[in-house]
Amino acid sequence: MTTKPLQATALDLPMVDPLPDSTRKYFDVCMEKLGLIPNVLKAYAFDIAKLDAFTGMYNDLMLGDSGLSKLEREMIAVVVSSINRCWYCQVAHGAAVRKLSGNPALGEAMVMNYRAAELTARQRAMLDFAAKLTTTSHEVEEDDRAALRHAGFDDRDIFDIASVTGFFNMTNRVASAIDMRPNEEYHAQAR
Amino acid sequence: MTTKPLQATALDLPMVDPLPDSTRKYFDVCMEKLGLIPNVLKAYAFDIAKLDAFTGMYNDLMLGDSGLSKLEREMIAVVVSSINRCWYCQVAHGAAVRKLSGNPALGEAMVMNYRAAELTARQRAMLDFAAKLTTTSHEVEEDDRAALRHAGFDDRDIFDIASVTGFFNMTNRVASAIDMRPNEEYHAQAR
Amino acid sequence: MTTKPLQATALDLPMVDPLPDSTRKYFDVCMEKLGLIPNVLKAYAFDIAKLDAFTGMYNDLMLGDSGLSKLEREMIAVVVSSINRCWYCQVAHGAAVRKLSGNPALGEAMVMNYRAAELTARQRAMLDFAAKLTTTSHEVEEDDRAALRHAGFDDRDIFDIASVTGFFNMTNRVASAIDMRPNEEYHAQAR
Amino acid sequence: MTTKPLQATALDLPMVDPLPDSTRKYFDVCMEKLGLIPNVLKAYAFDIAKLDAFTGMYNDLMLGDSGLSKLEREMIAVVVSSINRCWYCQVAHGAAVRKLSGNPALGEAMVMNYRAAELTARQRAMLDFAAKLTTTSHEVEEDDRAALRHAGFDDRDIFDIASVTGFFNMTNRVASAIDMRPNEEYHAQAR
Amino acid sequence: MTTKPLQATALDLPMVDPLPDSTRKYFDVCMEKLGLIPNVLKAYAFDIAKLDAFTGMYNDLMLGDSGLSKLEREMIAVVVSSINRCWYCQVAHGAAVRKLSGNPALGEAMVMNYRAAELTARQRAMLDFAAKLTTTSHEVEEDDRAALRHAGFDDRDIFDIASVTGFFNMTNRVASAIDMRPNEEYHAQAR
Amino acid sequence: MTTKPLQATALDLPMVDPLPDSTRKYFDVCMEKLGLIPNVLKAYAFDIAKLDAFTGMYNDLMLGDSGLSKLEREMIAVVVSSINRCWYCQVAHGAAVRKLSGNPALGEAMVMNYRAAELTARQRAMLDFAAKLTTTSHEVEEDDRAALRHAGFDDRDIFDIASVTGFFNMTNRVASAIDMRPNEEYHAQAR
Repeated sequence: MTTKPLQATALDLPMVDPLPDSTRKYFDVCMEKLGLIPNVLKAYAFDIAKLDAFTGMYNDLMLGDSGLSKLEREMIAVVVSSINRCWYCQVAHGAAVRKLSGNPALGEAMVMNYRAAELTARQRAMLDFAAKLTTTSHEVEEDDRAALRHAGFDDRDIFDIASVTGFFNMTNRVASAIDMRPNEEYHAQAR
Repeated sequence: MTTKPLQATALDLPMVDPLPDSTRKYFDVCMEKLGLIPNVLKAYAFDIAKLDAFTGMYNDLMLGDSGLSKLEREMIAVVVSSINRCWYCQVAHGAAVRKLSGNPALGEAMVMNYRAAELTARQRAMLDFAAKLTTTSHEVEEDDRAALRHAGFDDRDIFDIASVTGFFNMTNRVASAIDMRPNEEYHAQAR
Repeated sequence: MTTKPLQATALDLPMVDPLPDSTRKYFDVCMEKLGLIPNVLKAYAFDIAKLDAFTGMYNDLMLGDSGLSKLEREMIAVVVSSINRCWYCQVAHGAAVRKLSGNPALGEAMVMNYRAAELTARQRAMLDFAAKLTTTSHEVEEDDRAALRHAGFDDRDIFDIASVTGFFNMTNRVASAIDMRPNEEYHAQAR
Repeated sequence: MTTKPLQATALDLPMVDPLPDSTRKYFDVCMEKLGLIPNVLKAYAFDIAKLDAFTGMYNDLMLGDSGLSKLEREMIAVVVSSINRCWYCQVAHGAAVRKLSGNPALGEAMVMNYRAAELTARQRAMLDFAAKLTTTSHEVEEDDRAALRHAGFDDRDIFDIASVTGFFNMTNRVASAIDMRPNEEYHAQAR
Repeated sequence: MTTKPLQATALDLPMVDPLPDSTRKYFDVCMEKLGLIPNVLKAYAFDIAKLDAFTGMYNDLMLGDSGLSKLEREMIAVVVSSINRCWYCQVAHGAAVRKLSGNPALGEAMVMNYRAAELTARQRAMLDFAAKLTTTSHEVEEDDRAALRHAGFDDRDIFDIASVTGFFNMTNRVASAIDMRPNEEYHAQAR
Repeated sequence: MTTKPLQATALDLPMVDPLPDSTRKYFDVCMEKLGLIPNVLKAYAFDIAKLDAFTGMYNDLMLGDSGLSKLEREMIAVVVSSINRCWYCQVAHGAAVRKLSGNPALGEAMVMNYRAAELTARQRAMLDFAAKLTTTSHEVEEDDRAALRHAGFDDRDIFDIASVTGFFNMTNRVASAIDMRPNEEYHAQAR
């Protein structure tokens, strides 16, 4: 790990050049707010329709209205990515958990074993559901939804837990398939 | 299985009423082309932003330009859904494989065990990659991409194989989480 | 899958020629009742003692007296074969479930994920036992038998559930080991 | 384990009484040759048709003509039963391996981890095939059969390896399902 | 398995020569008490510091003061070694269970499937904990400790169950890594 | 995770009081060199013989003479602990990898997925062996040792790789069994 790869992924798919205005503006906003352009965006930018479909779904799920807080959604993201051992997503979203919670150890626990964290009953039910949906989705049944309802989630919340869990099961696999590499800046953030 | 559930899922999330014009038109096109409105669309229609994000990504991936034929993309869809044992996706996309290939047995083999099908070397490499990415994505490495290249796929194709595999790993989990039920019409199609 | 293999299996073990009278009569009955001679019989017919031992056990188990209906026995057959992903047995016995139930979707659900079917409590208990016995037989204990008794099964029924589950765990492996190919006629039956 | 159960299994299925003459003679032969009546026979003797189907298949497979020696067939039996952790079959067939080989350590190695035994290339190929067929039968393909042929087995031998492996995958499950208990005499035999 | 390997392991790491006095005395005690010098000691004797660290921990754990009887500790040893399929440890500690219990069948059951043994509730709870800690340690939580307390174990006992389970998860892996071979004398002991 | 537990573990096993002089000195050295007394030492300090056996083996393995560098041994420690998802060991030894390498990302990669790190062929072979020994030790055979030799390791090195891998498979399980909690100071070290 002495020298860092310069490319965002193992594939030779350069970004559209020049980028359309709307994309350039989106990247500028990232630079301003995050101090970096996440490599996942560069990875998709060889095809603007694909990039827009990805960011459209991402922004709705992770930043849009929901009964789940942004921290809760990021906790799901990291637990799913930890089960799938996705390098990119654990690094990037682990940083997000540290930042949003102000609790570096929480970010680490989501990566290492969420069962070791001191969680509320609501958080634990949410992460247990996400973990089961990730490892053995074909065994998820009414009892599992009932456990979420018992923990205080309504049907819209269940949809959102399912959607965030599903989304990271998608991106984990895309990232692993193409060897997506996280921006180095994430490692030191919010420690 | 004597009486069929009337709802598209186990959640009580009714469709927006009335549907916006653009959605109604989209549903009309489905009715015309497929003879049905896929329940997955009804499941998302409680929130038009989510529905549009889903259909945007779906249409780009499964119907847009690609080095993979539509049949190849549907074959990946079924193999992934079979590993995850997703009832909705195996039914709906199994029908698509039968229709697109004109070979009912091929649709069944994708559901039951793709290794039993007589496949071209290209198809087999593609499905082996999709299967590994579904079950043990953290072990996918350069050798796996090399096997795809050896079978004739270029980097854009690899991106598309990864994206379709990832997408169904998402939708399989959303469908299982909310008990999404396939439209009955699929079962008898293209047998 | 464009051209179909002519042989019943990957092994070069031709049928005894001429077949003994009793075997020929048995095959004639199959032709009459089923419209085909199941390839599994052709696969065993290189040795009439083996064929007779197989058909003897099969006919006793699947067609003989039992507290389980023929449909229930076929449902077990397909669920076991689905877990083991046996191409031959899923095709042949999936057709049997469709025929006996008059419910094509039930046959598909046994193949795809029996948990998605609307089952009676009795059927569900029976299939849960068969599934556990297939995947982790060493963990089956008195509690599992108690669950069957609670669902209304007596000790003879338990023996039959165990025997049918065991039998398909055998034939699935023989079929996969020698690449047994299902008769094409099955695919379109009872859709 | 201080007191031994008197029944052959956990089910209340007493033997037919009186036993038919042919069965009594068969049991007498067992007593003479083995010094005991294997509990598996008592377990099936509540229904003579089932007992005869079982012994018919067993005797053909394990004692009939084959390119595999009786020791080789028993080695497969124990390796399969070890993977499935079947108490009855490991005890009874472990004793058979010790007896037939005159090598107590070989019987133990088949139970504990066949990879630790010093095996011929032929034996190793045979047991590797049996192990794969037991754990992941859906991944057995032409390459696996080729490995057996390379080790000197012909197509009839492959059929027999498959059949013995399949048979014990059946009986292991029947035995675990009904808690079949091995005759105590086996433990001390041929140590 | 016709000829026995002369070396204790697959590595070429000869014992220190001459052995220090304290080691020689220790080996003499083994010879006197056990009739053999366990090969595991010879395997470590290329480095006396490593040998002493190993025997120090072993003797404290397996022979020192504890709320667990020596037989209970050996039962854990065999169950763990059976899950990990360690040839050396199953042979050596299986013999210890037979000797300490005077019950050969109990030794076999620990190797083959501890669930088949007739155990006290205390023994069963202890072995269930050891088995879970061996296969899925990351899922062990307060409920699992509560089950041990409910079966009569105190916190010191729990520490000892954890330590013995941990220790054999270590030695199983060292033994498998270097192909450690059990002394032949074990096989016939206490049958 | 708002309030931190004060105890080192979930068990009520207080440290010997007063500690013997030698232990107090050892703890003073820890305080001086590490700025903390690792909770694992406090967990064992209810029984000084157990503490000494543990530290004796630990110090020999991790700090003693070896063909493996201290960093390499810590890399093994983290990869093993990551597979077992041990909270304590990933936190404590992840910090050690960051410190010894001066490369925070390397420490994270060992926790998240070592395959994503840019490793030398020697490091990769070492970690692949450790991973296989952790997950499927019963399948480790001569070929695996040959791969280590091919990567430049000699027999003594192989012993050390096996021993470090084994040791963390032990401590991971002890830590998970008793809910051992890492000192908070580790999280921010060497980021």
